[in-house]
Amino acid sequence: MAKWIVETGYEDIPEVVKKEGKRSLLNWLGVAVGAAYHPAVDIVLSMVEEVGGKEQASLLGRKEKLNILFAALVNGMTSHMFDFDDTHLETVLHPSSPVAPVVFALGERYNLSCKDVLTAFILGAEAECRISQAVYPDHYEVGWHITSTAGNFGAAAAAGKILGLDIKQMTYAFGIAASQASGLKEMFGTMTKPYHPGKAAMNGIMAAMLAAKGFTSSEQGIEAKTGFANVLSTKQDYTQITGKLGEHWELLKNSYKPFACGIVAHPTIDAVIKLRKQHQIRVEEVVEIEAYVNRLVPILMGKENPRTGLETKFSTYHCAAVALLDGKAGEEQFSDERAQAEDAVALRKKVRLIVKPEINKDEAIINIKLNNGTILTEHVEHAVGSMINPMTDGDLQEKFYDLTKGILPEENIHKLIQLMFKFEEVAKVNEITALCSST
Amino acid sequence: MAKWIVETGYEDIPEVVKKEGKRSLLNWLGVAVGAAYHPAVDIVLSMVEEVGGKEQASLLGRKEKLNILFAALVNGMTSHMFDFDDTHLETVLHPSSPVAPVVFALGERYNLSCKDVLTAFILGAEAECRISQAVYPDHYEVGWHITSTAGNFGAAAAAGKILGLDIKQMTYAFGIAASQASGLKEMFGTMTKPYHPGKAAMNGIMAAMLAAKGFTSSEQGIEAKTGFANVLSTKQDYTQITGKLGEHWELLKNSYKPFACGIVAHPTIDAVIKLRKQHQIRVEEVVEIEAYVNRLVPILMGKENPRTGLETKFSTYHCAAVALLDGKAGEEQFSDERAQAEDAVALRKKVRLIVKPEINKDEAIINIKLNNGTILTEHVEHAVGSMINPMTDGDLQEKFYDLTKGILPEENIHKLIQLMFKFEEVAKVNEITALCSST
Repeated sequence: MAKWIVETGYEDIPEVVKKEGKRSLLNWLGVAVGAAYHPAVDIVLSMVEEVGGKEQASLLGRKEKLNILFAALVNGMTSHMFDFDDTHLETVLHPSSPVAPVVFALGERYNLSCKDVLTAFILGAEAECRISQAVYPDHYEVGWHITSTAGNFGAAAAAGKILGLDIKQMTYAFGIAASQASGLKEMFGTMTKPYHPGKAAMNGIMAAMLAAKGFTSSEQGIEAKTGFANVLSTKQDYTQITGKLGEHWELLKNSYKPFACGIVAHPTIDAVIKLRKQHQIRVEEVVEIEAYVNRLVPILMGKENPRTGLETKFSTYHCAAVALLDGKAGEEQFSDERAQAEDAVALRKKVRLIVKPEINKDEAIINIKLNNGTILTEHVEHAVGSMINPMTDGDLQEKFYDLTKGILPEENIHKLIQLMFKFEEVAKVNEITALCSST
Repeated sequence: MAKWIVETGYEDIPEVVKKEGKRSLLNWLGVAVGAAYHPAVDIVLSMVEEVGGKEQASLLGRKEKLNILFAALVNGMTSHMFDFDDTHLETVLHPSSPVAPVVFALGERYNLSCKDVLTAFILGAEAECRISQAVYPDHYEVGWHITSTAGNFGAAAAAGKILGLDIKQMTYAFGIAASQASGLKEMFGTMTKPYHPGKAAMNGIMAAMLAAKGFTSSEQGIEAKTGFANVLSTKQDYTQITGKLGEHWELLKNSYKPFACGIVAHPTIDAVIKLRKQHQIRVEEVVEIEAYVNRLVPILMGKENPRTGLETKFSTYHCAAVALLDGKAGEEQFSDERAQAEDAVALRKKVRLIVKPEINKDEAIINIKLNNGTILTEHVEHAVGSMINPMTDGDLQEKFYDLTKGILPEENIHKLIQLMFKFEEVAKVNEITALCSST
């Protein structure tokens, strides 16, 4: 794999893969900017202020610049903050959050073209997805946060590509990455979770910079008896790593969340929004929202009376309510304010979840019962954002807009959307990052 | 344990423990200074130069100052470079290399007394030794470099103590540390091995700084179902962590290596040096050095024709030869030069290893046969540096001198030895670090 990363160039990557890479980066940039003012960021910045560093790369959505290590740390953290970033569904890895911050920070520092940045991103994402597949599901099930552990390899590969490592150096970068791979699922629900991909990004840059200068490591950091795959997993399938490299692309399986909450509630939200669009529903006429759902919905998203924004993310009741009230379920709909809003509290009491064994994970049937006896029905077979029914470019634009408005100037947002879709034609990534500075 | 670390002060620590803490720090400082000019250090420095940072804490044995994170990284790395640092024999953890760099860097930055530095060091070391015991041996056997993984907790605890965390913050610091714990045994023999404790030291400072500012994490980072102990080990014995805290001290089990090579060759070296002291042996009269040794000796240290300095560290033949030629086996005896020196090459051919099942790991019987028929015999029952026969203060002074001469000015070395033995009386740790600047 090290050899393949070193030897693969922009021209070797198929158009469809580049297209998906650009969609990934647009989605990633939106979620990163959207969380730029989260309290966790200020905490990291106060640490950075204490230790210092050059001003080399932008904090997306803010004004500060930090050195490449800390910029990658913060941008990696913000992009996973809302759990609203992309997902490689097969392994539940979030491919962009550990890798995109690396290529943006190094791209800005070394004044690179967007072509080079896109190439390094795609290769890094491919590396981490494939390494994830080699150890998934055992690795994840035992308790590792795979975005964090495998993210170290993606970050190191992307950084190594940009720094121009040779094959031996790239192998060593993977070795150093293997020995820095960490991150536990126990941290879910705390700031340490989004810190994981940020730290992986930072670690990856360190690994590549050290390897570039001759730092030595194992040449079998992944596959050795006491290497990554054997120590952190009971399953090892190395054909997933090196099989059909350059022919088969994991990035094509990347998916994007239309709604800022747990994925099993997405079919319900999708159906309610569809009904809202089709009918003129007056909320005061709604008697009940009946939702036929997969068995996982009440288990993972069954909170009936959420009190905080974070809790609403685990409440299908709240999801259905805001979907009808607001016609969307973006980060805004999951604020502390919206959690306690009268209209949301009242409407979510009218939501009833009914588990049906035959309903799939990306499926839901919704009946909205009105006080005149009418029942409005919608059956979503594959929710938007699923592999079969992916978000359109238009959906991604709208998501980007919703996440960045109020943080970036309006005109920058529109310009960014334009530029991100023709990313490879933009001469320098600095043109992009310059537009990501807050108002 | 978080509560105990927060609430334990200098006065609560028994004198014998403080004494061992000082011996640990003296030994640590020597090995750190000794490796200050290793090529791996220059590689890390070139990375640091690229990203920048404040000049806050000294690189021991050099002139540079780096920010606290990078100073801890480099000093942690140098102190483990020669594999000549201290060992908690029960868990093969090296207690000082991840923790001492933290307390020195923060102590220097915040102009602390040596009392405070010693307290934080002892508590951090106690934390990591106990957490190691909770998961050893399973954790180590599966492939984790325990100095790296458990070192993260020691570093976070020590940093948290210095930064004055409250109990909740200390708990979170442990949580962040749990999610940064990494480091694989596969890296042994490469620069990534000594990088481990350095990175653990750096990680630990980050964990404590973040927790100090309100960064949240799990409150059960160690013991939760998907926490450190369950994910990284098949054994969990939590009584090792919290049992008899403040009564029983693991640091009292710390040991120091008199010789800069694998520990199973130590009884042989000890015996040969003893014979050299007792008799006027002319090397040209030696016909054979017959060594009755433990079964592990040829397995771990059986290299007959070592070509490099690193290889000589795995050659009991070379060890016995230099012990007789030089009367010591310090870092100097394991240089590339000494590996190829004529006298060493010739003499190690006369060494014969004979395994005896009844010989213990810290035992050896040596017969030096001379060409006049004389046989000189020495039976070492417990090699110097073992728990039963620890290095004396004088031995530690001599080791410190050998490691630092040529790097620090002579007068500084003598002053440092003096100060390290009355460490708690030194007003500021800056008085110590000022003496560690190279000539």
